[in-house]
Amino acid sequence: MSDRDRKPRFQRSPHKGGDNGRDQDRSQGQGGRREHSRRPPRRGREAGDGPAILYGWHPVTMALANPNRTIRKLWLTENAARRLAEENIATRVTPELVRPDMIDRRLGPDAVHQGMLAEVDPLETPDLDDLPRDGMVLVLDQITDPHNVGAILRSAAAFKVNAVITTARHSPEATGVLAKSASGALELVPIIAVPNLARALNHLNDQGFMTVGLDSEGRESISAVPLSGPLALVLGAEGKGLRQLTRDTCSVVARLDMPGEIKSLNVSNAAVLALYIGASKLGLMG
Amino acid sequence: MSDRDRKPRFQRSPHKGGDNGRDQDRSQGQGGRREHSRRPPRRGREAGDGPAILYGWHPVTMALANPNRTIRKLWLTENAARRLAEENIATRVTPELVRPDMIDRRLGPDAVHQGMLAEVDPLETPDLDDLPRDGMVLVLDQITDPHNVGAILRSAAAFKVNAVITTARHSPEATGVLAKSASGALELVPIIAVPNLARALNHLNDQGFMTVGLDSEGRESISAVPLSGPLALVLGAEGKGLRQLTRDTCSVVARLDMPGEIKSLNVSNAAVLALYIGASKLGLMG
Repeated sequence: MSDRDRKPRFQRSPHKGGDNGRDQDRSQGQGGRREHSRRPPRRGREAGDGPAILYGWHPVTMALANPNRTIRKLWLTENAARRLAEENIATRVTPELVRPDMIDRRLGPDAVHQGMLAEVDPLETPDLDDLPRDGMVLVLDQITDPHNVGAILRSAAAFKVNAVITTARHSPEATGVLAKSASGALELVPIIAVPNLARALNHLNDQGFMTVGLDSEGRESISAVPLSGPLALVLGAEGKGLRQLTRDTCSVVARLDMPGEIKSLNVSNAAVLALYIGASKLGLMG
Repeated sequence: MSDRDRKPRFQRSPHKGGDNGRDQDRSQGQGGRREHSRRPPRRGREAGDGPAILYGWHPVTMALANPNRTIRKLWLTENAARRLAEENIATRVTPELVRPDMIDRRLGPDAVHQGMLAEVDPLETPDLDDLPRDGMVLVLDQITDPHNVGAILRSAAAFKVNAVITTARHSPEATGVLAKSASGALELVPIIAVPNLARALNHLNDQGFMTVGLDSEGRESISAVPLSGPLALVLGAEGKGLRQLTRDTCSVVARLDMPGEIKSLNVSNAAVLALYIGASKLGLMG
């Protein structure tokens, strides 16, 4: 699929909250121990809890287009600055013009940064209680690979998922490689990191969500399950699959039947298929 | 999706040919300039054309289970050797017992090798003329990232694709990271590297294939296209998309419509969706 003409759209992101000044005191990602209260108390910044790093065209321009995203620093190469100017994209903060190798040194040689690096504050995320009572959410049970989680976020944005719920531990932080793989989707899909996934799933069950775990050992084929919204699709890590308690807490555990010899997919591939099937069954495909 | 219980099945792979002794003289991957003749002439080994490296449980055990795969060397840690013995998997060649750090040093610190490394000959691949006249093939137009191509191969095996056709240039070699991401699928889905993709597509068109290019700028939605077998699904690289000549040679160029704000997916995610839609429309989902 080509995305060469994709441009950021300057519009309000679906993130709730919006009081940017508070973001600095919020923790996000692995270090965060977020409670389920509607408004968690402010906490001091924890060890290892720094700004998020975004690099590359889509992650940075989508962040610039997101009014809820606080930009702390912006490094641009001359070429990148010119490209932003040509596309009429405001930088919001005064950029520092740097040589490409300065960004290389900061990110390592393998990062495709396209001359752009931003230091940003983590986004405010909604509470589970604030989720819409229709559509889909995705739940990731200790999926650790940032490339996969990034690709999953990108697919989640493509399928209009309301939130991605992750475990506070054993999940990658919303920065760097994850942000790059998400290709701007960090600005569109809120990530809710919860300290206890089974409790969060029970919470969703209580709120009327249908919670469907995907597992190659599932008793039913997902194509045979009558899915309804609000729907939570739950995926486990490759190899380990869903943890037992996660599996026990889902209302249904289903498998994706496929005709070939290999019966399991890369986890981001499994996620996008589940999203497509879910969106089709919920009538979201238009 | 869990794959913790996936075991290699010792059965004949769908690869054609099978005269293993010839593999040594065949080139495969980026360096290879394969013609479309039914039996290409033997050629001397080209520069950079060495054995393929497979590491990790699925790639190595699936290779051991493939009678068409010539194993040259097998490095095992003590633990890996014990695990193979427990699973009653024959090693076919006498393994060298090594310490894990010897494999680390060979592959670099990030490779999850699970104590197993094999040097193998590239597989013999079928010619375009030998493809079955039903089912699906996947065509990759200069997709360079080995993680993505590996994940695509794995999905191709899951959806019983008859072959993956790649460009001889600007495609990753069938070794290392690609093999690891493919999780054993290299043994199940032949890769046909062609010197000229447009010519290969014309060849498929002449043979009665429906050649469908996927592109976010496609005029029709793929869900509205009446797909029929034999079907070739054609994907381009992220960012660049399909090259103009590729697009012009496809019988249809279609887009994947999605309800969210992001309109393009990671290429392996786009591939698995296209495969699912193709397999469903061709009645292959059982």
